[in-house]
Amino acid sequence: MTQPSIDPQHLDRLAETAVRVGLNLQPGQDLVLTAPTSALPLVRRVVAAAYRAGAGLVTPLLSDEEVTLARYQNAPDQSFDRAPDWLYDGMARAFGDGAARMAIVGDDPMLLAQEDPAHVSRAGKANSAAYRPALEKIANFDINWTIAAYPGASWARRVFPDLPEEEAVARLAKAIFAASRVDLDDPVAAWTAHNEALHLRKAWLNEQAFAALHFTGPGTDLTVGLADDHEWQGGASLANNGVICNPNIPSEEVFTTPHAERVEGTARASKPLSHQGSLIDGIEVTFEGGRITQARASRGEAVLHELLDTDEGARRLGEVALVPHSSPISQSGLLFYNTLFDENAACHIALGQCYAKCFRDGETLGVDEIAERGGNASMIHVDWMIGGPETDIDGITPGGTRVPVFRAGEWAR
Amino acid sequence: MTQPSIDPQHLDRLAETAVRVGLNLQPGQDLVLTAPTSALPLVRRVVAAAYRAGAGLVTPLLSDEEVTLARYQNAPDQSFDRAPDWLYDGMARAFGDGAARMAIVGDDPMLLAQEDPAHVSRAGKANSAAYRPALEKIANFDINWTIAAYPGASWARRVFPDLPEEEAVARLAKAIFAASRVDLDDPVAAWTAHNEALHLRKAWLNEQAFAALHFTGPGTDLTVGLADDHEWQGGASLANNGVICNPNIPSEEVFTTPHAERVEGTARASKPLSHQGSLIDGIEVTFEGGRITQARASRGEAVLHELLDTDEGARRLGEVALVPHSSPISQSGLLFYNTLFDENAACHIALGQCYAKCFRDGETLGVDEIAERGGNASMIHVDWMIGGPETDIDGITPGGTRVPVFRAGEWAR
Ligand SMILES: [Zn+2]
Ligand SMILES: [Zn+2]
Ligand SMILES: [Zn+2]
Ligand SMILES: [Zn+2]
Repeated sequence: MTQPSIDPQHLDRLAETAVRVGLNLQPGQDLVLTAPTSALPLVRRVVAAAYRAGAGLVTPLLSDEEVTLARYQNAPDQSFDRAPDWLYDGMARAFGDGAARMAIVGDDPMLLAQEDPAHVSRAGKANSAAYRPALEKIANFDINWTIAAYPGASWARRVFPDLPEEEAVARLAKAIFAASRVDLDDPVAAWTAHNEALHLRKAWLNEQAFAALHFTGPGTDLTVGLADDHEWQGGASLANNGVICNPNIPSEEVFTTPHAERVEGTARASKPLSHQGSLIDGIEVTFEGGRITQARASRGEAVLHELLDTDEGARRLGEVALVPHSSPISQSGLLFYNTLFDENAACHIALGQCYAKCFRDGETLGVDEIAERGGNASMIHVDWMIGGPETDIDGITPGGTRVPVFRAGEWAR
Repeated sequence: MTQPSIDPQHLDRLAETAVRVGLNLQPGQDLVLTAPTSALPLVRRVVAAAYRAGAGLVTPLLSDEEVTLARYQNAPDQSFDRAPDWLYDGMARAFGDGAARMAIVGDDPMLLAQEDPAHVSRAGKANSAAYRPALEKIANFDINWTIAAYPGASWARRVFPDLPEEEAVARLAKAIFAASRVDLDDPVAAWTAHNEALHLRKAWLNEQAFAALHFTGPGTDLTVGLADDHEWQGGASLANNGVICNPNIPSEEVFTTPHAERVEGTARASKPLSHQGSLIDGIEVTFEGGRITQARASRGEAVLHELLDTDEGARRLGEVALVPHSSPISQSGLLFYNTLFDENAACHIALGQCYAKCFRDGETLGVDEIAERGGNASMIHVDWMIGGPETDIDGITPGGTRVPVFRAGEWAR
């Protein structure tokens, strides 16, 4: 008898957790589900769990790695400026009519690493433009949504290049199940407790109303001014449709909006960054007046510079997030090449667009009001890790008092 | 070394044939492709072939047998009146913008045989209503479209219930490849020759302009009056966007529109009919004034009566089609439980809706003009086989002269 690489009971629990905790799907609510074909075993369970939760109609939209590659390897040049607007507009309409949204990730994050970078970037831009109406409803939190992960074989091989495929899948599955808290007997109870802990953290930070955070660690001496009226977020969130959901399974971070013009000093990435199929390693940057004025990388420096040149906002911060070094994802010691996991392994900052939700009464603020308060705007939002076991963080109050927030990578209180 | 059940070279040729002969996809044209996940090996090849042919953007929409069953087995009752209008309206928009359409079939035709028939029928109705805007563009032949088949394992087990799965798949694959003419070295040339043969048949029939066809055979003595201004169709067809395509791979029939009120006599089905997961066998019907006034079946009689009671047009004919007994699909001796194949094994009639294209200048005719000429209207279109090796057919001219059309199941000339 052989043991399956992916424990079916844990997979059942992950489906149930994604539907009940991640989405908190409401009786009669429709669901639009995007997933790769490699994740079909989870997709099928999610569909069943969603209907058991009373779903109206579940519509899966399946992508496929080989179909994607068939395009890059065979399509005429003009194809790379095309995107299926009719499909994305349809999704926006479904969200407008009240459907929830789940995304399952599971493909090789470096799938396109060997393809023509110009084609990858043009196709990405065309897709982003076409997807915007649907994405806005998600980014504005108009509906309950969530992202969960399945240990697809190509992703597993990427994370564990030295292991046989079956073993790699088994290891990635274990890591995903642990990070998603579905290796516990009662994942719903575990998520309730976890959300309470994150809510206490963000309540304390909101009470402090720091003017800035000062990060120190190997290669990092960075003061991140926080936006006026910033609000810390983390864990379960209330969507505008009145449903409390967990947008990321897993999630270990509390996060808020930096001030776009008040970031000073140097930062060194503590982990490599996987961006659109390229790996950028050894990032070191200098901020002046909120803007990155110098940037180096030991690997992928050209990709980093291209990223920073996307638009004016790409050189400024849109997010700062706190994650202790003892986070279960950090303790796994793995690089997942996927932001859903890697950003939950360490304190991080994000280049680019900020979240309206990370302002007091953010859902009522217009674009100009967000900018006035120091919120950054950009077409990109790219998280990268700056935290580790030696990271210290002080909160600086408006009066200039220093309050310990992190010591040696852990919460100071 | 084991031989694969499905010859990859034949599969490559089927993809190429579906794109070049079936669709005749134009450079820069988009393609909307629906297929089951079981057909992914063909889907991936079709995507590559479409891009090699210069496709703008190929958008596959994948369904999945287990996802479908998860709905029937878990969804609340109200779910079965729901359909994804936003997705179907999007498809209609894509067709309106010029996209071509390919459907790949490959799932078990009896998938829903064990599910609640009321749920199956309600879900089918909701889906048909939502899909109508997209279907109209296909039925009106506004765009080039095609249907092709992949030997999915569950379908293969249905066709060959006594064989091990691998052998069943191998047998079904061979049958599909032969019927689709991709077991030949040059399928495109074979389709050109085949289309020429079908065009000669339909040209002769159009020249005769018969008033009626008289079918005789075991249990059948049926006079099928033809609609005024009827036109025979078959093989390659010109879509309204100017592209000549082959809507069915395979296709062996020439077909036209009967007169809804001029069918008299009795007909006995020569093969079982698979309808929405049920098998109806031993059908015997009597027509009076075009209308079925008596109907029996040795198996599935209740389903047959439900079908005939769908609407007034469900008891009248919308199509009559001629297929010789020597057709390769007939010679295979198989029952595929799938109309794409089974209707190409024998002469058949169809209950329900007629095709506008089977009238002279049909694309210019309104619904009323079609009805005036004797064209039938209904929500259904269900083909069933009445031909076999003993079938004789006479054409009856407007003057009453009899012209031999079929003798002993074969063309008489
Ligand atoms: Zn973050
Ligand atoms: Zn982020
Ligand atoms: Zn037919
Ligand atoms: Zn038909």
